[in-house]
Amino acid sequence: MKGIRQLADHLQISIGTVSRALNGKADVNPETRRRVLEAAEALGYVPNQSGRALRQGTTNTVGLIMTQGVNLGANNDNFFPGVIDGLQAVLARHGLDLVVLLCSSGEDPDAYLRRMVARRIVDALVVTATRTIDPRLDFLQKAGVPFVSLGRSQSGAGSPWIDLDFRGIALHSVERLVANGHRRIAVAAPTNDVHLGSIFMQGYTEALEAHGLPYDPEIVFLAETSEEGGYDVADRILHLENRPTAILLIAELMSVGLYRRLGEAGLRPGPDLAVIAERESPVGRFLLPRLTCFRVRLKELGVQLGETLLSTIPAFSPLYPDAPRRKIWPLELVEGESDPPISV
Amino acid sequence: MKGIRQLADHLQISIGTVSRALNGKADVNPETRRRVLEAAEALGYVPNQSGRALRQGTTNTVGLIMTQGVNLGANNDNFFPGVIDGLQAVLARHGLDLVVLLCSSGEDPDAYLRRMVARRIVDALVVTATRTIDPRLDFLQKAGVPFVSLGRSQSGAGSPWIDLDFRGIALHSVERLVANGHRRIAVAAPTNDVHLGSIFMQGYTEALEAHGLPYDPEIVFLAETSEEGGYDVADRILHLENRPTAILLIAELMSVGLYRRLGEAGLRPGPDLAVIAERESPVGRFLLPRLTCFRVRLKELGVQLGETLLSTIPAFSPLYPDAPRRKIWPLELVEGESDPPISV
Repeated sequence: MKGIRQLADHLQISIGTVSRALNGKADVNPETRRRVLEAAEALGYVPNQSGRALRQGTTNTVGLIMTQGVNLGANNDNFFPGVIDGLQAVLARHGLDLVVLLCSSGEDPDAYLRRMVARRIVDALVVTATRTIDPRLDFLQKAGVPFVSLGRSQSGAGSPWIDLDFRGIALHSVERLVANGHRRIAVAAPTNDVHLGSIFMQGYTEALEAHGLPYDPEIVFLAETSEEGGYDVADRILHLENRPTAILLIAELMSVGLYRRLGEAGLRPGPDLAVIAERESPVGRFLLPRLTCFRVRLKELGVQLGETLLSTIPAFSPLYPDAPRRKIWPLELVEGESDPPISV
Repeated sequence: MKGIRQLADHLQISIGTVSRALNGKADVNPETRRRVLEAAEALGYVPNQSGRALRQGTTNTVGLIMTQGVNLGANNDNFFPGVIDGLQAVLARHGLDLVVLLCSSGEDPDAYLRRMVARRIVDALVVTATRTIDPRLDFLQKAGVPFVSLGRSQSGAGSPWIDLDFRGIALHSVERLVANGHRRIAVAAPTNDVHLGSIFMQGYTEALEAHGLPYDPEIVFLAETSEEGGYDVADRILHLENRPTAILLIAELMSVGLYRRLGEAGLRPGPDLAVIAERESPVGRFLLPRLTCFRVRLKELGVQLGETLLSTIPAFSPLYPDAPRRKIWPLELVEGESDPPISV
């Protein structure tokens, strides 16, 4: 645990310069500022908190808003821990802490957000599980609370966001399946109004069109993004006359239930139904066959969210001149065993 | 969203009595107090916060401390969401909010806790992932911060806790496996120093003794409580001369990796190796064969944690005269398909 004096000694720069660099003053040259921030992180610099408020007299705390049943309880086995690690790494540079604000399943997310803002527990927010129409973003803009959202929305015009490339996933997956001989490709998308669902479906529709494949509503499944949702989808597929040979799942946990239902019917995931799922996770890695999916660099995503958030706050914006205000976050395909070429 | 007036109207009790009941004053009869609290919850009563501090001038916020890599990233797919729902239901009765404080994977949990207490973000804490020796509990006692821990420890003498019955799980599982003809029963316990591991192992050892079975260190596996940990355990089993016919897993996610490794070797989980895992989860329910495991009433557990915590705080203790200071929380066996009788 180092203080500002040790940091100055280490860098052989004056305490005043280190202090101005840490506080984001304009009169420090960018290279010096970068060196100070890096050393602060490497040495575990712990700032004296009294001078470091996001606004004077405030909490030095950033909130991550999550919604029960949307972020948690589904699709969460490693996503948020990784993102939070990255966010915390950025905030720690400035002596800021992160708290997670969990909107319980029975509560209206809009009312919850207003209450948390009124409580003044945090000075800035990372909003997740954005809906297509999301009044929270408009509210935060009006209230003047700095925020970044993980996920786009039609609301909050001009507000900063980082979003996973759900369109890219759909395009890449369909292309890969077509290259492997599949022509009848199903999709499972979420039943709720989280905006990523509609972006994913747009990508799927575009990709079909690009490959001259018809859009067949019979193999477009709306389902819970959970094991049970995947089980239901497989069950519906088993009842079809004209079954798909491949399926694209919006959430990897769905594959667990899908695999089970196929297994119950004596069918093999992979050879009998090719599967690609959205995101790499430990569960998918240990399924048999191993899931073909997409990797998100989670910690880097958290770092980006943190830097974009800080870049919108006057006290920190000079430190992050290059942070993008909006960014579509790329994913990388991880080949598994679940989508072999079509068997003829 | 109802205020105190609507609540009083609904109950046909004076506002003064409702207020005294909500504030835990001693001059309200217990039956009235119960009716007021129930109605407050049912009607969604939202208190005027100015008068409701845990201590005067404080945050009205309770923190749930979690540790990355211990609580999250393993074994979390439905545990904390359920517990948090229950906790929030209790806190909402009194206009209190919950925030989750996540100790990042690189940070010392003891230093993190001290920092969070210094920040005064919260007025009371729920501590999780208790270790056998856990300085956090001693620190909180000295600092006079009200807390309850989910899990026992040798530290924090006399402090309140609720703990899952890990001893009971081990006893019940071994008994069930023995009744099904198994005599060589392996166990997988965690590598870290979370206290539940040693309680679980005590139960396992006791159960073997009770059934006259020898304790064989060759089939006691220390492993990560994750899919990968389960894969490793199965791999070690495959290399044994004298394989166990059954295994008891401390964490259900381990079963995913264990199933895969057995499958790779052409063995069937269940008939070739009976499996019982600690806790019911959606993943376990959709594995093939379905996992035999133990159910925790998660929301009720959260409610109990909340009520025990509030019972230690003077402003609320009169409202919760019957909350246990310590409780071993029972679990209920859920029969799956993974532990059939031994095949001869």
